[in-house]
Amino acid sequence: MTPDGFPVVGIVGAGQLARMMIQAAIPLGIGVRVLAERADDSAARVCPDVVIGSPDSAEDLLAFSAGCDVVTLDHELVNLEALERIEAVGGIVRPGPFTLRFAKDKAHQRREFSAAGLPVPEFAEVESAADIEAFAGRLGGWPVVVKAQRGGYDGRGVWVVDGPTAAADLAREAASRGVALIAERFVRIRQELAVLIARRPGGETAVYPVVETVQRDGICHEVLAPAPVPPEVAARALAIGRQIAELTQATGIVATELFWSEDGELLINEIATRPHNSGHFSIDGAQTSQFANHLRGALDWPLGDTSLLAPYVVMANLLGADSESLAPRMAQALMQPAPGVHPHLYGKGVRPGRKIGHVNALGDDPAETRARAVRAAALLTGRTE
Amino acid sequence: MTPDGFPVVGIVGAGQLARMMIQAAIPLGIGVRVLAERADDSAARVCPDVVIGSPDSAEDLLAFSAGCDVVTLDHELVNLEALERIEAVGGIVRPGPFTLRFAKDKAHQRREFSAAGLPVPEFAEVESAADIEAFAGRLGGWPVVVKAQRGGYDGRGVWVVDGPTAAADLAREAASRGVALIAERFVRIRQELAVLIARRPGGETAVYPVVETVQRDGICHEVLAPAPVPPEVAARALAIGRQIAELTQATGIVATELFWSEDGELLINEIATRPHNSGHFSIDGAQTSQFANHLRGALDWPLGDTSLLAPYVVMANLLGADSESLAPRMAQALMQPAPGVHPHLYGKGVRPGRKIGHVNALGDDPAETRARAVRAAALLTGRTE
Repeated sequence: MTPDGFPVVGIVGAGQLARMMIQAAIPLGIGVRVLAERADDSAARVCPDVVIGSPDSAEDLLAFSAGCDVVTLDHELVNLEALERIEAVGGIVRPGPFTLRFAKDKAHQRREFSAAGLPVPEFAEVESAADIEAFAGRLGGWPVVVKAQRGGYDGRGVWVVDGPTAAADLAREAASRGVALIAERFVRIRQELAVLIARRPGGETAVYPVVETVQRDGICHEVLAPAPVPPEVAARALAIGRQIAELTQATGIVATELFWSEDGELLINEIATRPHNSGHFSIDGAQTSQFANHLRGALDWPLGDTSLLAPYVVMANLLGADSESLAPRMAQALMQPAPGVHPHLYGKGVRPGRKIGHVNALGDDPAETRARAVRAAALLTGRTE
Repeated sequence: MTPDGFPVVGIVGAGQLARMMIQAAIPLGIGVRVLAERADDSAARVCPDVVIGSPDSAEDLLAFSAGCDVVTLDHELVNLEALERIEAVGGIVRPGPFTLRFAKDKAHQRREFSAAGLPVPEFAEVESAADIEAFAGRLGGWPVVVKAQRGGYDGRGVWVVDGPTAAADLAREAASRGVALIAERFVRIRQELAVLIARRPGGETAVYPVVETVQRDGICHEVLAPAPVPPEVAARALAIGRQIAELTQATGIVATELFWSEDGELLINEIATRPHNSGHFSIDGAQTSQFANHLRGALDWPLGDTSLLAPYVVMANLLGADSESLAPRMAQALMQPAPGVHPHLYGKGVRPGRKIGHVNALGDDPAETRARAVRAAALLTGRTE
């Protein structure tokens, strides 16, 4: 508890999501402690209460949680057994291990979602190249998507496999690393959508407008709010998001990424049981940001209004283009015609392709708003596209 | 400079203005160091880089400034000679001593404003009861307003003097404390207005809509944006604010408080050469908050758009009603009908009458928006009014 009686939220992990939670915590009077791996992690740089430790270490997690009224998470790469032990000694973890397992374990998630009638692509747990080939055969051919059930390796966890040779290579590599796999139908995507929902432990929810996430090479480049889709597609997406929030017993934000397929299907791609890149538009673009609502949900406080502050809000990620500092480009990027763009930098070193920040733009015209966000992002990162 | 090449802004003072500057600095990647008198000052609680020292001590200020790219201020109670010494050794102080003197020294300000043709109430520097009586005589009688030229005492610096006895008491007390005085015409006020302008060193400005500040017993209770005044009154107010920004060579925010008198005059009450209570509405209610624009102006970065995000924005101050913590009332205050209110707590101990935070509300109807803000403020502070 803070000296003035407010709760202290412990955040496991000190990346940009923790950093933006800290920003949201300040005006609410909420105390924040972060468990950082390094003192110069994104959130550790802006937090006066930093504990250095590992999210894999049960000892570190237990010691960290002792000083916190509620523990929440910057990412899902956390020792679930340790979180259960925190709960066993009376600590509060939100989202808790029950919820987190849906995000961490793809086989578990697909089984549970499928059993609940939620739309997931056809899938199978696979252990060998023969399993992958049999799965492809059942679906009528290649390619199929293969995912690591948990984590992944070399920073990758999703592969598009186009035939028996690739399947054999992947299965061999995965077996040698002890990585369990799941195969899924390859979906021909028309658009990718995301649904963000904040939820309190008792079931109250606050639902953001459905957004489109514009991906290139598997990386989110832009988010368009609201998504330019027919109302009935948005309504179906929201219904899926709501069902997932309830099924997973989410607390704080749960983000559901959806494929809207060329055939008109809506299929669940991934979920995140924490604030998510697809919700960064809400910092400037909604009455209450996803970070404030994550904290409010985790603390079991009433949730804030999720409506947009402008007809169109566009987020563009800042993806490192070179190893130069962003600093010299800042003034140029801010020199926008009104109404401007809102930069959000993560205080992370610049590396090619790394997400180092984002910008939000609000406007009355979707194309103009998007162009403004994209231009500012290009100026900040030094891209010439 | 931060490890990633961004400037470090040093803020002298660690009150709520510094705290809200820190919030604005995080997404811009700007480093912040605060000079705090105590480790539990409002801004020190949320800043990882705190130096303990006194804003009166030239030694402390010089040492503090050495690690900062730009020095700015949370309040004007700063040793001006020390700021000049910082500049003499190549440091950058924004606003600088030239600007600050207008806010710190009321006699200097009134003389300069008057010479520039700016509308100030009739005034005279006074040293004795006889001077005050002579001034009242010239204006046609009592009451007159008497102000301390600099600072004040016992937390007070403005007195309404209603006759010779009160004038004698005040003059005696002020003389015994070495406080120089200035007398001013008592203005019959219809409304109080404020103009907020952000300015860069080169003269570029960004101007917020004129607001009404609703005062009771000399304390600002609410701010209404935009001010409910005829357009020509707003235009005159803006012109005065612009002239002051230029005359004072302001950098960052300069706030001009104005009386709109019963006779229809617009008269300058006070100025603040930093973010100001009358601009807190901008955190949630404008495209760019006054805190972001203060930092941008101080860093000579391009300024952000100042337009409102809703037709009406209302700020209500949280004034301590008792010594209870705010925490138990938070959930109640957040349980607002949509679109909600945005609380901003300062992390300060609660004392009766002390400003401990504020709330902002956005809306389409001025009366409803104001009622919502006032109700949330009452819930948070435990007032029953």
